[in-house]
Amino acid sequence: MSLIVVGSMAFDAIETPFGKSDKIVGGAATYIAWSASNFSQPINQISVVGGDFPNEELKALKGRGVNLDGVQIKPDKKSFFWSGRYHLDMNTRDTLETQLNVLGEFDPVVPDSFQGSEFLMLGNLAPSVQLSVIAQLKNRPKLIVLDTMNFWMESAMEDLEKVLKQVDVLMVNDSEARQLSAQFSLVKAAKEIMKMGPKYLIIKKGEHGALLFHENQVFFAPALPLEEVFDPTGAGDTFAGGFIGHIAHTRDISFENMKTGIIVGSAMASFCVEKFGTTRLREISRADIDIRIQQFVDLVNFDIALV
Amino acid sequence: MSLIVVGSMAFDAIETPFGKSDKIVGGAATYIAWSASNFSQPINQISVVGGDFPNEELKALKGRGVNLDGVQIKPDKKSFFWSGRYHLDMNTRDTLETQLNVLGEFDPVVPDSFQGSEFLMLGNLAPSVQLSVIAQLKNRPKLIVLDTMNFWMESAMEDLEKVLKQVDVLMVNDSEARQLSAQFSLVKAAKEIMKMGPKYLIIKKGEHGALLFHENQVFFAPALPLEEVFDPTGAGDTFAGGFIGHIAHTRDISFENMKTGIIVGSAMASFCVEKFGTTRLREISRADIDIRIQQFVDLVNFDIALV
Repeated sequence: MSLIVVGSMAFDAIETPFGKSDKIVGGAATYIAWSASNFSQPINQISVVGGDFPNEELKALKGRGVNLDGVQIKPDKKSFFWSGRYHLDMNTRDTLETQLNVLGEFDPVVPDSFQGSEFLMLGNLAPSVQLSVIAQLKNRPKLIVLDTMNFWMESAMEDLEKVLKQVDVLMVNDSEARQLSAQFSLVKAAKEIMKMGPKYLIIKKGEHGALLFHENQVFFAPALPLEEVFDPTGAGDTFAGGFIGHIAHTRDISFENMKTGIIVGSAMASFCVEKFGTTRLREISRADIDIRIQQFVDLVNFDIALV
Repeated sequence: MSLIVVGSMAFDAIETPFGKSDKIVGGAATYIAWSASNFSQPINQISVVGGDFPNEELKALKGRGVNLDGVQIKPDKKSFFWSGRYHLDMNTRDTLETQLNVLGEFDPVVPDSFQGSEFLMLGNLAPSVQLSVIAQLKNRPKLIVLDTMNFWMESAMEDLEKVLKQVDVLMVNDSEARQLSAQFSLVKAAKEIMKMGPKYLIIKKGEHGALLFHENQVFFAPALPLEEVFDPTGAGDTFAGGFIGHIAHTRDISFENMKTGIIVGSAMASFCVEKFGTTRLREISRADIDIRIQQFVDLVNFDIALV
């Protein structure tokens, strides 16, 4: 059940049509850890923060079974900071400010105690950092999942191609799948992307759900129809955390079990968007999660015998 | 199993990024009849055409169990004509030309032989025409389903509000649901719209699937991920035909069975978009439909026991 999570731990400042956050804790690996730790512990975290990163956050994560031995703390530097403003549709956003800070020179070191981990979740980060982590692992994990974004397709495509060759599952959103494949049809895009390395492709479509492709198979999971999406920040990372957390917990990397992992991820993401940042993820219990997963069952379940 | 279908029978000329059609047979009631007749016959059709409408089309429909006693033929007039051009995303389109012709003065007459029909599908048409048909029915059908569009919200809202009060199920697309309710969230939109009359609301989201709302219940059906959408014209009407055809066949108006109806409708719509106009709907067999429905089962089916 050992899982390594790589990604940013950072600060965000978020504006939505419904409100504005202070500078709050965010970052891909933070969301992944809060989400995945509901299903699998320990989480072997690899990241970097500045001296400004709150000690209480690190303590809270430790309390959730997150092993921080792989998190470098640079006392004299500042943590990565991103601020953005969401449009009314909550699907598109403008970046207002990006301060790379400690992330600009991040040289990840995999602690010895992390060696032998069975699962590796590469959260969105520079492909060169993701490559470095893979290279440091003495045994290849049973499953490597990669999240990335359009920014790296534009700025570090050569490295990204190298990472793609080494991973089992790629997660991107629909526009990123189109950009990466130069195909508009997502079915065609999936075929192209699976030629680049990953045997499994998850395309996240936000409020329109998620698709899982593998060879000629396809699975679709809806997003839960919500009265309000308060803050979409971190929803994709939270989805990734639920997915890999479920896989690490069950140690089952079959297509069938990945489908269930996507439902778990979708359920976790539906909590994430209910409040600013990681707020909601800190509040929910396993019982809340089980109820939410049952809502997904009800949402898509129909009786084929009636046809 | 008696079903009345009301709507246009017309000509379309369609441009897509993949090609351009001649002036071909279209119209909401045409698509609905081709689709619904796979499941329920006869279809009691109410419409109006000009002298230019091809006799072979009328014959072909008769051959599919479509009773044309309610279709007025105006020999000296021309059929309704629409031409449009789809954008690259195939979700948005520009209307190039609209000629109302016979539709401008359509005064529907319900034949005596249609009285007592159990199901009524009001395809997209002027709300005043839809109201007239309802008013002429001596016994209220077991289920009335209404399709409408933004055009009527803008030009005939008063009549539309009257129709809404008299129907059981409303079908609209997502932007129309937002327009009708003045709510951005589809969950909130559904609540508002169900206050206007319909107890059931189906929101069609094109390639993103469809939602069924009833009281506090919600069901989601995906669209089949397709390599290519060749021509989306009539997909919504074909969906409606599959839905009402299934309901009329089973005579079961429960929420459970409506879910299955939505899967049937989605399967039918997935055929419609594969070729121009009604071409594909004329080709497919019941066996093709069954295979397609099974693909929907496979697409959403997951094992909750694995959680």
